[in-house]
Amino acid sequence: MDARMTVGLLGGGVIGGGWAARFLLNGHDVRMYDPDPQASRKVAEVLANAKTAMQALLTADLPAEGTLELVSTPEEAATGVVFVQESAPERVDLKRALLATADRVAPPEVVFASSTSGLLPTLLQSDMRHPERLCVGHPFNPVYLLPLVEVVGGERTAAATLDSAVEVYRSLGMEPLRLRKEIDGFVADRLLEALWREALWLVEDGVATVSEIDDAIRFGAGLRWSFMGTFLTYRIAGGEAGMRHFMAQFGPSLQWPWSRLTDVPELDDELLETIVTQSDEQVGGASARELERLRDGCLVAVLQGLRGQGFGAGRTVSAYEDRLRGAGS
Amino acid sequence: MDARMTVGLLGGGVIGGGWAARFLLNGHDVRMYDPDPQASRKVAEVLANAKTAMQALLTADLPAEGTLELVSTPEEAATGVVFVQESAPERVDLKRALLATADRVAPPEVVFASSTSGLLPTLLQSDMRHPERLCVGHPFNPVYLLPLVEVVGGERTAAATLDSAVEVYRSLGMEPLRLRKEIDGFVADRLLEALWREALWLVEDGVATVSEIDDAIRFGAGLRWSFMGTFLTYRIAGGEAGMRHFMAQFGPSLQWPWSRLTDVPELDDELLETIVTQSDEQVGGASARELERLRDGCLVAVLQGLRGQGFGAGRTVSAYEDRLRGAGS
Repeated sequence: MDARMTVGLLGGGVIGGGWAARFLLNGHDVRMYDPDPQASRKVAEVLANAKTAMQALLTADLPAEGTLELVSTPEEAATGVVFVQESAPERVDLKRALLATADRVAPPEVVFASSTSGLLPTLLQSDMRHPERLCVGHPFNPVYLLPLVEVVGGERTAAATLDSAVEVYRSLGMEPLRLRKEIDGFVADRLLEALWREALWLVEDGVATVSEIDDAIRFGAGLRWSFMGTFLTYRIAGGEAGMRHFMAQFGPSLQWPWSRLTDVPELDDELLETIVTQSDEQVGGASARELERLRDGCLVAVLQGLRGQGFGAGRTVSAYEDRLRGAGS
Repeated sequence: MDARMTVGLLGGGVIGGGWAARFLLNGHDVRMYDPDPQASRKVAEVLANAKTAMQALLTADLPAEGTLELVSTPEEAATGVVFVQESAPERVDLKRALLATADRVAPPEVVFASSTSGLLPTLLQSDMRHPERLCVGHPFNPVYLLPLVEVVGGERTAAATLDSAVEVYRSLGMEPLRLRKEIDGFVADRLLEALWREALWLVEDGVATVSEIDDAIRFGAGLRWSFMGTFLTYRIAGGEAGMRHFMAQFGPSLQWPWSRLTDVPELDDELLETIVTQSDEQVGGASARELERLRDGCLVAVLQGLRGQGFGAGRTVSAYEDRLRGAGS
């Protein structure tokens, strides 16, 4: 995987653009299909952010940047490539058709991965002639900085497909998490969605504003979550007696009325307006680009800090740098 | 608040010990009541960890350390002090009795705060002669490093009580979040509980292990959550079109079957055993003390990184250092 390769990208939005940056900065060539006439400008902006971030983060040199070619059909994006990553909008029919179209022109050994954040690979592969080559490779935004990618196969996915996808992602400095079962939303987004739903209730019920809810995460549990998940955190909270003690002490509180369990908030116009207004107040006029730079600066700082500790995503960055140095020597 | 004060602590476990460290390292004297014969040793260990962490984190000097006195009754802990922080186990009857006992001996101007992670202050103050002086001040573990403290009043809490508690916490370098309404679980723990419940389902259903679930957080969303909550993160994900676009695009997915909505997992022996076993595997024999040091090292590194960016909890640390320098000059 250290060798230069050509990959095909279907979709060049926030996620597809992030993939383009990951591949290009690792020295691979990219053929990208996106019907948006603004795609070229948008990808260039994501790439510029990614370059700044990766150069600030890494002590090892990146290889010479690959070349980006925008093509006008999905077939062209899937021709002459060894790997295809699909990042179209989250509509199952759209994704299924796009994958089937690209599938018809790519030789059978080309691996396909979908960036879907929750659609089942079994559904996505259903119209493909070579369904065995399709898996999910679900990344997180910004794709060029966050290491996590969930790798999930469908009923007809070959084990070799999952192996190849994991190898590709690891070579890009990512942390592939291979899931045991396909379920809607996979693992990460189920966790995020549970928190998000509760957050929407808190706004709907007037308990807290958008900004207060964000503060309740980022000044507390969010700082811990950057390197330890909930289970390890709670184990430590159990003190010397460990996990069994923690579960015995706090398990019963699960039965307390601590969340709006049984229902999903209705995203009516009033709730939507409240959220949009409070979100505008929260950012105080900062543009999307400014917020992206702020986010990337903080992410780089956090990753650098964790690298110094040799733990969590910091260890992923170190391993990536070792690989870059090995490839360059 | 810069002046040296004496505070009373009811309870000296993981949370009470963390409070002791926060107060002592800020130069305040502490009178602590805890019936555990091991309390003295445990608090000394927490204090040692806290000292190491704070000295690594801060560029400003801490004031001369306060003195810790262990007392044998709640009445003694509430005598001769200007502020009382209660951190007993999460049993409403126990807390209510403890607060009422201490309340009988403290002059009415002494402010009381409870560390409860979710019990309503209206319930906690119900047996007090001076209920107006009781509020919730809910911190996060480790108390000596995480800035967040949720400040919540009950039906009979005076506004001046909340003001005083906020002022005390801010002087200790914390980030008080004053809540608008009292609800079970407040804001932070409702969000954490929603995620935790979904995590338990994922283990129960055999979708992922304890360690995989933790990875799904710490290599992805958790890195962002250390400085930005979900609302701001999603606004940025909406790209140039912002929050309204994001909500329009992803709002409908709330109706998808992405979580085990309607029910709470039964913490039966089998699930408990699975979690304990997987948790043991995850830590590979590391002791609670080793894990605490790892956690603290990572937290210090993340806070230092964010201070360099002047954002989120990094800004809290900078403001705290400015205050320490002002107090010392």
